Amino acid sequence: MDLAFPAAVYAARLDRARSLAGDAGIDAIIVGPGADLDYLVGVRGHTIERLTALVIPASGAPTVVVPRMELSKVRDTAVGALGLVVADWVDGDDPYASVLAALPGPVRRVAVSDELPALHTLPLADRLGLLPELATPVLREGRMIKDEVEIAELRRAGAAIDAVHRRVPALLRAGRTEREVAADIAAAIVEEGHATVEFVIVGSGPNGADPHHEVSDRVIADGDIVVVDIGGALPSGYNSDSTRTYAVGDADAEAARRIAVLVDAQRAAVAAVRPGVTAAQVDAAARDVLRGAGYGEAFVHRTGHGIGISTHEEPYIAPGQATVLRAGMAFSVEPGIYFPGEWGARIEDIVVVTDDGVDNLNRTPHALTRAGA
Amino acid sequence: MDLAFPAAVYAARLDRARSLAGDAGIDAIIVGPGADLDYLVGVRGHTIERLTALVIPASGAPTVVVPRMELSKVRDTAVGALGLVVADWVDGDDPYASVLAALPGPVRRVAVSDELPALHTLPLADRLGLLPELATPVLREGRMIKDEVEIAELRRAGAAIDAVHRRVPALLRAGRTEREVAADIAAAIVEEGHATVEFVIVGSGPNGADPHHEVSDRVIADGDIVVVDIGGALPSGYNSDSTRTYAVGDADAEAARRIAVLVDAQRAAVAAVRPGVTAAQVDAAARDVLRGAGYGEAFVHRTGHGIGISTHEEPYIAPGQATVLRAGMAFSVEPGIYFPGEWGARIEDIVVVTDDGVDNLNRTPHALTRAGA
Repeated sequence: MDLAFPAAVYAARLDRARSLAGDAGIDAIIVGPGADLDYLVGVRGHTIERLTALVIPASGAPTVVVPRMELSKVRDTAVGALGLVVADWVDGDDPYASVLAALPGPVRRVAVSDELPALHTLPLADRLGLLPELATPVLREGRMIKDEVEIAELRRAGAAIDAVHRRVPALLRAGRTEREVAADIAAAIVEEGHATVEFVIVGSGPNGADPHHEVSDRVIADGDIVVVDIGGALPSGYNSDSTRTYAVGDADAEAARRIAVLVDAQRAAVAAVRPGVTAAQVDAAARDVLRGAGYGEAFVHRTGHGIGISTHEEPYIAPGQATVLRAGMAFSVEPGIYFPGEWGARIEDIVVVTDDGVDNLNRTPHALTRAGA
Repeated sequence: MDLAFPAAVYAARLDRARSLAGDAGIDAIIVGPGADLDYLVGVRGHTIERLTALVIPASGAPTVVVPRMELSKVRDTAVGALGLVVADWVDGDDPYASVLAALPGPVRRVAVSDELPALHTLPLADRLGLLPELATPVLREGRMIKDEVEIAELRRAGAAIDAVHRRVPALLRAGRTEREVAADIAAAIVEEGHATVEFVIVGSGPNGADPHHEVSDRVIADGDIVVVDIGGALPSGYNSDSTRTYAVGDADAEAARRIAVLVDAQRAAVAAVRPGVTAAQVDAAARDVLRGAGYGEAFVHRTGHGIGISTHEEPYIAPGQATVLRAGMAFSVEPGIYFPGEWGARIEDIVVVTDDGVDNLNRTPHALTRAGA
């Protein structure tokens, strides 16, 4: 048995999902592989073509439909620890019939997990004779509000990625390629306690101006501004995600001035975080600082995203997001400025909403950091 | 630009998908991130929460709907090389409206790619006012029949994984853990020319009796039977997948005898492969040999799966699969026998259907191979 948390944690999560489904008037939730299934019963991994599904009726016991060849792996999770009903199937059987059999009689409203692929969503819709709805509104409630064990994991993840960022100035030297630096960072992510490397972005010079650049064979030059956005998952599955911007040798004075404004914008957004404010207000706090300095157009993405057992989840911190912050929410605060053809910069911390404010899980300096020239 | 194949290859694939959609009476295909999008336009990577979609109307030009922050990455694929129409969107926009705008007027039948998550499938169904169907029957036709450039890549992948299997006997020694051996194998997979490690299964002794066991901290012992099932993706995205069964030191004579039957069963299935036979017949060829020897119950999974830019795809080689084999199909032939609590064995090659028979892409010996004790 290799559970991230005691079985009672999963039992409570399942109970909460069932009761939220009942409150919402949903008859049953069908959860396919992905972060939701990991959250609810600790089952990880992802098979596309063979259906694995957790069926949670609003009343009655949940059932896990699983291919027989994955049965022993699934029993080694909360499914086994909690003694959940399992309906296994072999190639040639009809797994959708098993899902239908696990439903509480006739159903009017069925919700499915976000990640369930069309390959299974559409046959299920057909067999149910109704269009399912998304389970997000029900499931996100549980996943969005982190409990103490989850916050402790996110804190550990934050400390681990901070340790990696402290090693970056020595790795980031003129003459090396982004890819070489990224390989060293990936090794450091594992060395500092992560089980997996989720992403390593090294965006040097003009590459940094593309917020979704990953790595390339570009040779880093003296004077480059470099965005380093990195993250990994702990053995428990909880993720880190932190971005710092580095200068290789001496930075251009104008770039340094703009990045100081970005640091102010990021700090303003973090300072805006507390229970009762909306996600949009946090986004606006960063955006207003950048707009006031004339860089509104250079900030081309949202301010942040929730984080937990997936790297991107609810709540999203963006214009128009009316979600009201509550204690236990964890998300990134990561404004950036991008000047196409020249350079880009981004500063990112993971923060947790506390009862009366905010706890910042990343502690390395925010200012433009000098790396080895 | 970093295309796996010349732009003309993608243009031909898009044309074929469009014409197959037209033949099937489908008005448009909507393809989300995943293997289909990689196959059709060379776009890789996977964002769940922000919609990226290729819309292929049965008549008219395709459109790519993409978040603006991923625009430059998408332009760096066949999307840019072929000058496809791009509809980019930013947080706060309605990406489904862009999909609808890319459709050829009123539609009656719309198909979506297998991997499109419910998060996008259900809002699209709602906005379209119809339940989409799966695009598999249309898209698999293109992906299932490999052309010469694809077969050349699969052949390279096969040679690369063969080179790794040749190194396994020296790595698999009594006293090491499965995890230690797997780490060395993962490094060898990259050293031998793969860009990524897709999976490394080291199932020693009783762990080998679980067909979906991956790795553990079990210490390998003298006399263990060990299943080693490994694969990676080349830089082009095409995959390898080969399984061999090893004996650490001297194997038990009864185990060796049973594994010799398995080798016969695998050979019989490969020998059954030629145009015109069904997938079920290939499966039966292996199953009949094992059944005849009294191990029918020990063979608990299908015989194989297609392979290409995804590790599991059409055609599936299983009981009841009526798919008629045609030249250009590529799939695994991997019967196994599993004795719970004792040991398991599996032998797997990737084969390609030729005009008059079969080409085996894996060339290392099939017999139980002695590893370092």
